[in-house]
Amino acid sequence: MPQTETLIDPARALADLDALRDLTGGPDGSRRLCWTDDWTAARGLLRDRLAELPVTVDTDEAGNLWGRLAGRTERTVVVGSHVDSVPAGGWLDGALGVMGALEVLRTLATAGTPPACTVSFVDWADEEGARFGRSLFGSSAVSGTLEPDLVRDLRDAGGERLEDVVRAHGVELDRAGEASTRLRDVAAYLELHIEQGPVLESEGLVVGTVLGTVGVERHRATFEGQAAHAGSTPIRHRRDSFLAAARCALELREIALRHDGVCTVGRADCTPGVVTAIPGRTEILIDQRHLDSGTLALMLSDAKDAATRFAAEEGCTVEWERLWAIEPIPFDADLIEIARAACREVTRSDRALPSGPLHDAAEMARHVPTVMLFSSSTGGLSHCKEEDTPVEHLEAAIRAFGLTATRTIDRVARA
Amino acid sequence: MPQTETLIDPARALADLDALRDLTGGPDGSRRLCWTDDWTAARGLLRDRLAELPVTVDTDEAGNLWGRLAGRTERTVVVGSHVDSVPAGGWLDGALGVMGALEVLRTLATAGTPPACTVSFVDWADEEGARFGRSLFGSSAVSGTLEPDLVRDLRDAGGERLEDVVRAHGVELDRAGEASTRLRDVAAYLELHIEQGPVLESEGLVVGTVLGTVGVERHRATFEGQAAHAGSTPIRHRRDSFLAAARCALELREIALRHDGVCTVGRADCTPGVVTAIPGRTEILIDQRHLDSGTLALMLSDAKDAATRFAAEEGCTVEWERLWAIEPIPFDADLIEIARAACREVTRSDRALPSGPLHDAAEMARHVPTVMLFSSSTGGLSHCKEEDTPVEHLEAAIRAFGLTATRTIDRVARA
Repeated sequence: MPQTETLIDPARALADLDALRDLTGGPDGSRRLCWTDDWTAARGLLRDRLAELPVTVDTDEAGNLWGRLAGRTERTVVVGSHVDSVPAGGWLDGALGVMGALEVLRTLATAGTPPACTVSFVDWADEEGARFGRSLFGSSAVSGTLEPDLVRDLRDAGGERLEDVVRAHGVELDRAGEASTRLRDVAAYLELHIEQGPVLESEGLVVGTVLGTVGVERHRATFEGQAAHAGSTPIRHRRDSFLAAARCALELREIALRHDGVCTVGRADCTPGVVTAIPGRTEILIDQRHLDSGTLALMLSDAKDAATRFAAEEGCTVEWERLWAIEPIPFDADLIEIARAACREVTRSDRALPSGPLHDAAEMARHVPTVMLFSSSTGGLSHCKEEDTPVEHLEAAIRAFGLTATRTIDRVARA
Repeated sequence: MPQTETLIDPARALADLDALRDLTGGPDGSRRLCWTDDWTAARGLLRDRLAELPVTVDTDEAGNLWGRLAGRTERTVVVGSHVDSVPAGGWLDGALGVMGALEVLRTLATAGTPPACTVSFVDWADEEGARFGRSLFGSSAVSGTLEPDLVRDLRDAGGERLEDVVRAHGVELDRAGEASTRLRDVAAYLELHIEQGPVLESEGLVVGTVLGTVGVERHRATFEGQAAHAGSTPIRHRRDSFLAAARCALELREIALRHDGVCTVGRADCTPGVVTAIPGRTEILIDQRHLDSGTLALMLSDAKDAATRFAAEEGCTVEWERLWAIEPIPFDADLIEIARAACREVTRSDRALPSGPLHDAAEMARHVPTVMLFSSSTGGLSHCKEEDTPVEHLEAAIRAFGLTATRTIDRVARA
């Protein structure tokens, strides 16, 4: 039997990506918003491809699409990603991983003999959460972190309720959690994705291994000073909340650099917010991320100390409100080693990096050994129609993913 | 004949202020928004007071209310301010000057002999511009800077057009400029006002002489960087427009301090403005003020240099758009000396300071020698119901204003 990895044909995955773009994308970007007709059409293309293979195809209680190729053991390696996109999104975000996983399944399914262990393909439902604001819908249902009561009444821009919309697509929200039975026998989860950031490209690299998804601390910091007339109040009499916030924002960057994490101030709202008044109140939205939970906690405490200090120096006060937080989710050390070796063999680089964005893999990593591979992202752009990756990078990434998959299958079969 | 200044009775002016507050103010603040029934009621109170005096009362083509006390010459000293207020405004902004001027007129009108020159009281229409956004309506009509075509179609929050609203109050907009005939024979304009800032109070002072109104340069600076994912973009790869703007805002303060002016960043708008994205574009609104036009120009050029430098250091660009500007309007040197002497005699201090806010006096100063006096403002607060000044400060300010008026009258009569 030839080595499976030598049969992986990136050109077939690229042809599938082109077909998907012809069907649900174009010059204005991808339009595979989950729970819409375009998304259903994308699913139809996947079903057509799966129907050509000797695999069992079905959809679980959360709307995830599965294709199961029985192997010589019940122990299962899952490969997958998501075909849904943000509106006017890119052609690769999610789709690369889906078509890469499909190519792995196709290669194994047409090899002539059953794989060493069972291999399941999955297309997760509503990874983006772009319609209702709740990302990782399908994978969180499987991992047990989806709480129906928290999402039932979310409404899209047109006023439709999440529960009603998913029901029209065959998902009974209160039964979505039953999809967790899909975890049975799963021994590993593998996902290929574009980086959605500039790191690999800036280092001249093609593919990288993902160490895990970073933890996030997201807060609103509200600085209170004193609104006053812009003309009649000398500088030394001011308690300017915007300047306190500006100093804080600049220090937040230094804190992130010091700890090798990231921090973003994405918005500042001044009150009264007119050109003739010193801002009495300024709210800033803060997003801090790090792969290590202890370091992330330190970044947050440094940030609060800095905000308190600058507020005091500006005659202001500051209050923090946590908007959202998630712990870092590290991937599996053994799978990381397998993936790095595969990348090294294909591209002569074994760069490993954390993922800033969340992925379905983070939900799977709560329960099963997991790893991801990233291809480069041109200009680091994603969630826009300009999203792209050089074809030769895509080919190498699909090859490295295939090599990672076959070695993981061998390892799971032997365990 | 007794010295007129010894007959000035601040208690009568304070009683008038109380009556005005009873009629058009209260616990929620003043409600003398111009061109409304409450403003008309305030005008009615003024007409009642003027009707008790041997003065000629009329309203000009721009809606300004005049009360003329003929003196021994046609040459005229004008005293006045504005009775209109912002919604939920303070009880003293404008009203102090109106009642102070009325008390000067009353003292002179009841002295038994005509004053040495003619004295006119004026209540300017719509100083605040709080309803249509165009301040100094009546005084700019008199000074010739009101352009009907620029204000005709301004609409209030209820959608009513300025031209229609002023017509309902007897003002034909296209004839408002004819009020400029009121400048004939005017030899001086004097106005008392609250400071609306913290300078006098912070120095333990009661009253001050105003050197002029500062010049204003008002701009929107737009920093353009690159929007990118808050999680996937390392700090060193970012082109963060908000941090460029934050550094600029902090430097703008240093520039103001260096030049002894003021500068305010009243608002910052980030795009896309979400916590998960680095701001690709940040607009800040900038207001710079100084009493000297050359220094103001220098402040602006320093600000542009700083913005360009910080933008470049952050990998961004910056564009400036002028929103509005006005030259500094210095008051009359001789009248400033008279006012400072009067303040010194009443309060033992001759502090002089620029006015950050604009006033009707700035329009008059374009054509006639002008000076203003400021009383202290508690906490520097104005345009709010908390606006206040200690009664003994009001009394001293009215006395100093009366002394300034009688000496100016003597001077004009002698000239």
